[in-house]
Amino acid sequence: MPAPSPVPARESAAPVPADRPADLSADVVVVGGGGGGLPTALFSRWLGNEVLLLEKAPQLGGTAAKAAFWYWVPNNEPMRAAGLVDDEQDYLRYVARLARPAGYDPSSPTFGLSEWEHAMCRAIYESASPAAELLAERGALRYRHCPDVVDYWSELPEDKAPKGRVLVPAGARESMSDGGAVGVAAMAAAAERDGVGVRTGHRVQRLVVDDGAVVGVEATTIDGRTVRVAARKAVVFASGGFTHDPDLRRNFLPPSVAGGCAAVTNEGDFLAIAGPVGAQLRNMNNAWMCPVPLERAVARDPGMIGMFSVAGDSTVFVDVRGSRVVNEKLQYNELAQTFGRYDAATGTYPYLVLVQLWDQRTQDCSASDEYGRQVVPPGADDSHVISGATLEELAAAVAARLARYAAVTGGLALSDDFLPNLRATIERFNGFAARGVDEDFHRGEKPVQLLFNGPVKDEPGRTNPTMWPIGDGPYYASLITAGTLDTKGGPRTSPDGQVLDSIGAPVPGLYGVGNCVASASAQAYWAGGATLGPIIAFAHRAATAADREPVRDPSTTPA
Amino acid sequence: MPAPSPVPARESAAPVPADRPADLSADVVVVGGGGGGLPTALFSRWLGNEVLLLEKAPQLGGTAAKAAFWYWVPNNEPMRAAGLVDDEQDYLRYVARLARPAGYDPSSPTFGLSEWEHAMCRAIYESASPAAELLAERGALRYRHCPDVVDYWSELPEDKAPKGRVLVPAGARESMSDGGAVGVAAMAAAAERDGVGVRTGHRVQRLVVDDGAVVGVEATTIDGRTVRVAARKAVVFASGGFTHDPDLRRNFLPPSVAGGCAAVTNEGDFLAIAGPVGAQLRNMNNAWMCPVPLERAVARDPGMIGMFSVAGDSTVFVDVRGSRVVNEKLQYNELAQTFGRYDAATGTYPYLVLVQLWDQRTQDCSASDEYGRQVVPPGADDSHVISGATLEELAAAVAARLARYAAVTGGLALSDDFLPNLRATIERFNGFAARGVDEDFHRGEKPVQLLFNGPVKDEPGRTNPTMWPIGDGPYYASLITAGTLDTKGGPRTSPDGQVLDSIGAPVPGLYGVGNCVASASAQAYWAGGATLGPIIAFAHRAATAADREPVRDPSTTPA
Repeated sequence: MPAPSPVPARESAAPVPADRPADLSADVVVVGGGGGGLPTALFSRWLGNEVLLLEKAPQLGGTAAKAAFWYWVPNNEPMRAAGLVDDEQDYLRYVARLARPAGYDPSSPTFGLSEWEHAMCRAIYESASPAAELLAERGALRYRHCPDVVDYWSELPEDKAPKGRVLVPAGARESMSDGGAVGVAAMAAAAERDGVGVRTGHRVQRLVVDDGAVVGVEATTIDGRTVRVAARKAVVFASGGFTHDPDLRRNFLPPSVAGGCAAVTNEGDFLAIAGPVGAQLRNMNNAWMCPVPLERAVARDPGMIGMFSVAGDSTVFVDVRGSRVVNEKLQYNELAQTFGRYDAATGTYPYLVLVQLWDQRTQDCSASDEYGRQVVPPGADDSHVISGATLEELAAAVAARLARYAAVTGGLALSDDFLPNLRATIERFNGFAARGVDEDFHRGEKPVQLLFNGPVKDEPGRTNPTMWPIGDGPYYASLITAGTLDTKGGPRTSPDGQVLDSIGAPVPGLYGVGNCVASASAQAYWAGGATLGPIIAFAHRAATAADREPVRDPSTTPA
Repeated sequence: MPAPSPVPARESAAPVPADRPADLSADVVVVGGGGGGLPTALFSRWLGNEVLLLEKAPQLGGTAAKAAFWYWVPNNEPMRAAGLVDDEQDYLRYVARLARPAGYDPSSPTFGLSEWEHAMCRAIYESASPAAELLAERGALRYRHCPDVVDYWSELPEDKAPKGRVLVPAGARESMSDGGAVGVAAMAAAAERDGVGVRTGHRVQRLVVDDGAVVGVEATTIDGRTVRVAARKAVVFASGGFTHDPDLRRNFLPPSVAGGCAAVTNEGDFLAIAGPVGAQLRNMNNAWMCPVPLERAVARDPGMIGMFSVAGDSTVFVDVRGSRVVNEKLQYNELAQTFGRYDAATGTYPYLVLVQLWDQRTQDCSASDEYGRQVVPPGADDSHVISGATLEELAAAVAARLARYAAVTGGLALSDDFLPNLRATIERFNGFAARGVDEDFHRGEKPVQLLFNGPVKDEPGRTNPTMWPIGDGPYYASLITAGTLDTKGGPRTSPDGQVLDSIGAPVPGLYGVGNCVASASAQAYWAGGATLGPIIAFAHRAATAADREPVRDPSTTPA
């Protein structure tokens, strides 16, 4: 496992006045070089601005570099070219239904969203496609359309355009799992080609403020220098969420064992930095969730990939009592909600860790090193895999592995009746699998559950490829918990990315884009790429608005 | 229903410099006159300070005036006098086990709490009893000890002092339900007696800041004046949580239909006010929870009392499919967790509203107007009660009532099979009740479930007084949802109440106490009075620390 890259330590976020010349300057300063910062810098540069991008890590890419980089673009150009209708009001019903299920109201003008959420969702619809087209036209992010990829809730009556909203970087492999590496490389090359200034290893610590406007930032470098950077027009933060600040996680999100898959530099820096200019936090209780392997999550393995796909057919998840408690093929964000379920009678989190169990068939036919699958092929790192020739052996090994993690799981341990319950669970599941019908959890009944089923052995004539009876030993298992892909709360912005203060007024010169600011998606994970599609839309809108800012505070230009 | 009292509207929270003389001044300015502000003002005054208390509402009392005002005081004086041992390490195990169940680690020096949480919990143990004693000695809050009142998790092995930590104001009625009125009146009288200045109808909008220190506040009055108040030593906020800001609720807490029982002035003002001086928010994902009646919660009835007690024996809660889903006698904070359970398969909140159903026996024998019980006596407001001579009639009336609220419940409606399911539910429950054993949810098996059982008909010889078979019609029902008593997140403070900035340094001159700041209880509701006991401890600590602050900024003293 590679060690996390060293980055400068956090310092005080208290803003400083523009009381001395800056060391560097640009029209627009972009903070963060991942999936939000790279397109923001490009859009801004293409409008004629001098742009400087500051990245905390030693390299560009952020979380996006690890992702498949699907991007969800409503009413996109290839859909329109193919005659697929994606009406704005229908789109808004779909996004509202999932963002705020408890408040969804089809008879309300905003469908139950707040006015702010509604305006933000409209901005996504309006700008995601033009932004994607511009990136493609300029050769910064050419795409391949995925006409058959379904939304994650395509079965809902509110989804009138259930297929075709997803784009992936052109040149990604057929399975699309390397889209992030391809997309980041393409955008980084375009940034270099088009003259975006880039400084890696620069951690932005605080704002430079003059007469209520943000006129720059101070960053520190790994060798201890403080660099003051003047922004003549605006500073745009795209610095990611707070996945890797354990204290923030436990104080805003549901209980969890460990962090998640975001870039390890995503420590919520913008929360502290934006507070002093009056930023108001929103959507702090939600995250882009995914099951993750317990061991890698606890070890903060920077290479950890979320379990987008629970691969295999002869496999189940069981809890520490040996029972199935969830449809294992739920889309990852929904599957991950299971782990945080509270038992109010005992004051515990009994599903904080679940056990994925599989047999030799799944090991032989469904192994893969893509999309975070736990069933890995020979030669891959399988340190997370627990095995046993019999269920007795497997249970003993699982118990031993769980015991190692007792200090971070509230002492979670297998129950005394785990083994008999497990046998009964397998017997019941095998009956369902033989008939192709999961009477308990309806596995495999929705299109999205097939999208991520992964490779399985061909069985001619079967109707439900997500299930097959679990065979005799040997058996394999892996410990699974919930993690974030990244968080989705932060300062509230206008639909043009302007950070808003306590009465909703923009803070002059300060913008935010991506997972460092509040997402109007609330609890929803609408589809694959519902992260990056909207982020690209807001990158375009923020760059456009920042371009129109007056030039401020010449006193901070370099000496 | 009384209309909410008018209060000044919210204005910008951006701090102002100390650039003009103040209109009023004091050594210590206390913001909020409820269960946190009144003791803070008294403790501060008794240390010899000139104290000015600013209250937004037209009257003192805040949320505490509506409460029973139990206060939970570990190792209190009457316990010690009676020889009851309440060891600090045992107390810490108990509070840690419940505050962070997923992280509880009996082998860790902090038992799995963060260092900050551990320090705050120790401060409660150290100061709650001396603070309570001082209030009693000075005649501001005399108490009655409740030696038989159990903690809410008294059955846990970690609870080594399961009884006797609760005090109530002396003079409260035998049932203790009017403790808040008694306690607030006593403290307000002491404040007047001892020369605490009080201004009601003053809404604090922002801080006055000089050279990084807080030196006062600006408040507005209902007639539109802005009053600048200088604080020579410190400002202590005790302004309550954010229960009545719907936008804050939906962006920090689990989904809910409506607000809660806090004073209607509890709109989270301190979150916006403290941000600009670098305050960092903590424990924003938790609240003091309680079931509440749907109609009163949606109507924002300022007199609404939480359902501390689900009264009666021949009564059940059912969901919209007619099934029991929870032990109805769980302690209120735990019972309230049920309503927010997400169904990841359907993307809905199926338990957002539950139906309490009872029969004539419970109506005749368990009616009460105390502790938020839904079964009310003749003459009380029973607009929330739905009735029917038969289950068919009752179901139709419940369906009609639910339909009125569809716009705020995500369209929750009774299922087609509600009635047959309900009949089966009643039959099964009646079997359990006849035997005194609830095989599904274990109703009545723990001491706390008897504490809040309410009055029930005497049935000689029965072992479980929480259950009795539900009889024939007529039937009664009430719609129940989850609400807050108040929230428990806000700026992080030191154990002495100092608001801390992004690197953990105190903001000079700024303190916070009570539900407006972060509670180290995390998700726990340790016992009745676990709100006010710790608040009184921190009021004492904050007043003591504020007293030692240097006198600042004479320029802001009155002209």
